[in-house]
Amino acid sequence: MRSEQLPTPAALVDLDVLERNASRMAQRAARLGARLRPHVKTHKTLEAARIQTRGSFGGITVSTLAEAEFFAAGGFADITYAVPIAPARLAAAADLARRVERLNLLVDHPDAADAAAACARHRGVRLSVFLKVDCGYHRAGVDPDREESVALAARLAASPHLDFRGILTHAGHAYRCRTAEEVRAVAAAERDVTAKFAVRLRAAGVPVAEVSIGSTPTLAVADDLAGVTEVRPGNYAFFDATQVALGSCALGDVAFSVLVRVIGRYPERRELLVDGGALALSSDPGPVQVDPRCGFGIPCTAAGEPLAGWRVASLSQEHGIVRSPRPIAAGTFPIGTLLRIVPNHSCLAAALFDRYAVLRGGEVVGAWCPVRGW
Amino acid sequence: MRSEQLPTPAALVDLDVLERNASRMAQRAARLGARLRPHVKTHKTLEAARIQTRGSFGGITVSTLAEAEFFAAGGFADITYAVPIAPARLAAAADLARRVERLNLLVDHPDAADAAAACARHRGVRLSVFLKVDCGYHRAGVDPDREESVALAARLAASPHLDFRGILTHAGHAYRCRTAEEVRAVAAAERDVTAKFAVRLRAAGVPVAEVSIGSTPTLAVADDLAGVTEVRPGNYAFFDATQVALGSCALGDVAFSVLVRVIGRYPERRELLVDGGALALSSDPGPVQVDPRCGFGIPCTAAGEPLAGWRVASLSQEHGIVRSPRPIAAGTFPIGTLLRIVPNHSCLAAALFDRYAVLRGGEVVGAWCPVRGW
Repeated sequence: MRSEQLPTPAALVDLDVLERNASRMAQRAARLGARLRPHVKTHKTLEAARIQTRGSFGGITVSTLAEAEFFAAGGFADITYAVPIAPARLAAAADLARRVERLNLLVDHPDAADAAAACARHRGVRLSVFLKVDCGYHRAGVDPDREESVALAARLAASPHLDFRGILTHAGHAYRCRTAEEVRAVAAAERDVTAKFAVRLRAAGVPVAEVSIGSTPTLAVADDLAGVTEVRPGNYAFFDATQVALGSCALGDVAFSVLVRVIGRYPERRELLVDGGALALSSDPGPVQVDPRCGFGIPCTAAGEPLAGWRVASLSQEHGIVRSPRPIAAGTFPIGTLLRIVPNHSCLAAALFDRYAVLRGGEVVGAWCPVRGW
Repeated sequence: MRSEQLPTPAALVDLDVLERNASRMAQRAARLGARLRPHVKTHKTLEAARIQTRGSFGGITVSTLAEAEFFAAGGFADITYAVPIAPARLAAAADLARRVERLNLLVDHPDAADAAAACARHRGVRLSVFLKVDCGYHRAGVDPDREESVALAARLAASPHLDFRGILTHAGHAYRCRTAEEVRAVAAAERDVTAKFAVRLRAAGVPVAEVSIGSTPTLAVADDLAGVTEVRPGNYAFFDATQVALGSCALGDVAFSVLVRVIGRYPERRELLVDGGALALSSDPGPVQVDPRCGFGIPCTAAGEPLAGWRVASLSQEHGIVRSPRPIAAGTFPIGTLLRIVPNHSCLAAALFDRYAVLRGGEVVGAWCPVRGW
């Protein structure tokens, strides 16, 4: 089957591109001397995770317990659940921890540490934990400059019910950068803040086996990971319009796109209506700090060639408006025309689909089903 | 089971509120003398659609062919698929049309009209069609002031393979309004543009049985629907933060919310981290034209009381940051605290869940499963 025959909207994965992205990141991590524990939340599929872990130690990173359970059932045995654990999820996490080689949980608050230790004791397991550190993103994590943060690490390390693995951070603020220079500064901070905190913890007598960092933009520019043991990028498997704008990749490196059809044609306003809306592309605003007029994705031909100057001007639930910078000539882009949209944020767009059509050179060679829910 | 025992994030539907919303809109449509054909895309469930159609003729509106098929299988026999039909979907639509009393399709281009007629002839069915009219939203629809639009209606009406039902519009630009006054102006235009076009078509000899309009904001302010036969609001079943800002409803009328738990606590920046992110609330920017600082939803207590001045400041895939306007006092909002978030756009948030927990007074009395995909 050719991709042109798919019902639309359809999620497309270019397998050649995905494999190249995976192989490049694996080489990059090896060259930088860090273990690659890819995040799998972007695609949420066993197939893509297997490609990301080819030749590696096999560890992965997930963003929900549902993902942890799905990937464990699919044979992945070393999993980091990289969101601070809700106490109400601890019992299920402890049950899963028993069935895999290692399930790492995240903690950044004494109450969560105590709840994890209590659950581990109650369930008769030893729970593996990381201390989440804030390297400037200000989403989650302890402030590495505070004395309480050292005390919390010591508390985790001292618990007989917990296996303290080390520290973990994510420089999500790289996504707010405007220039490659800014991304480089964030990447340096991600590494330095964490490595320095590891040194401080060790000096305080707290053993730190792992120093885990990583995001796709910061890894794209990193040239030295001294003090880091592990990296956890994820988006690089697919990439997206935001990564193109940040300079993490070229448009030709984006492995995920949404195939849509033209269902309305309004040359008087230089617009086409397509059958992919916010439930196919997500409402992610995209890299507005780089390009305030970026719209909701990059419109391309069905073959993936960008339509220069075109924008996804607006989205509603099932409608997308694609606007041309030039008059739309008579006879061009008729009703039924196929277009590909590279979404702003492939993690959010991919999660809207029950299935991806997997392509090699335009031929559908497979269908991958992501895990859903929590 | 109490809602407090649900795993989070969880989609909650307050059944009492939903029933009240449905009954009020039914009374409103009856008082205005228009038939109510509720849109079901907001919830996508048979259960809510049955509540919306209590005492009515039973017709519904859908936004995907998957919804049309799901609701037909659930006993709904009069369905309007209110997105311009993609020619590639016509064969499936024709098959479905055979199995229900009426499936209305939307057309706004001569090529689509011809494709629909050709498919109907080929499949040996008569396809029911509406002409989509643009009343100022500029998303889809013909310009009612152009001669070609009358010609297209005549072409639909003249086809032996099509059953031309009339004209249909949607004043989606009501969602961009800043004041009740502006919503009233859009509502008047929605009615007047469409009613006037119906008069023009009839004068040109084109029979127009149905004049179908409607959105939740415009219906909330409508006081006269002269010339209109049918209304198609949908969001009113659930409502959301955008409708509250537009004045379509009070916060107490919102029937849908997302239950989350506090998984991080950062009093130094007056923030809590919750386990509902963009994959639980959607990235819909909300009514920024009314309140530029609206954030990504309205934070409430687990019982649904709004937390005055609090904002959902940012979302990433599985993380939400909720910010307090005041210092977060020691001992308040501990890790594990339940909160409810009223999302900006309930249609997009609800579509992210495989199941809604249905509540009466905090007690879980059911689970509803929305249809997904296209």
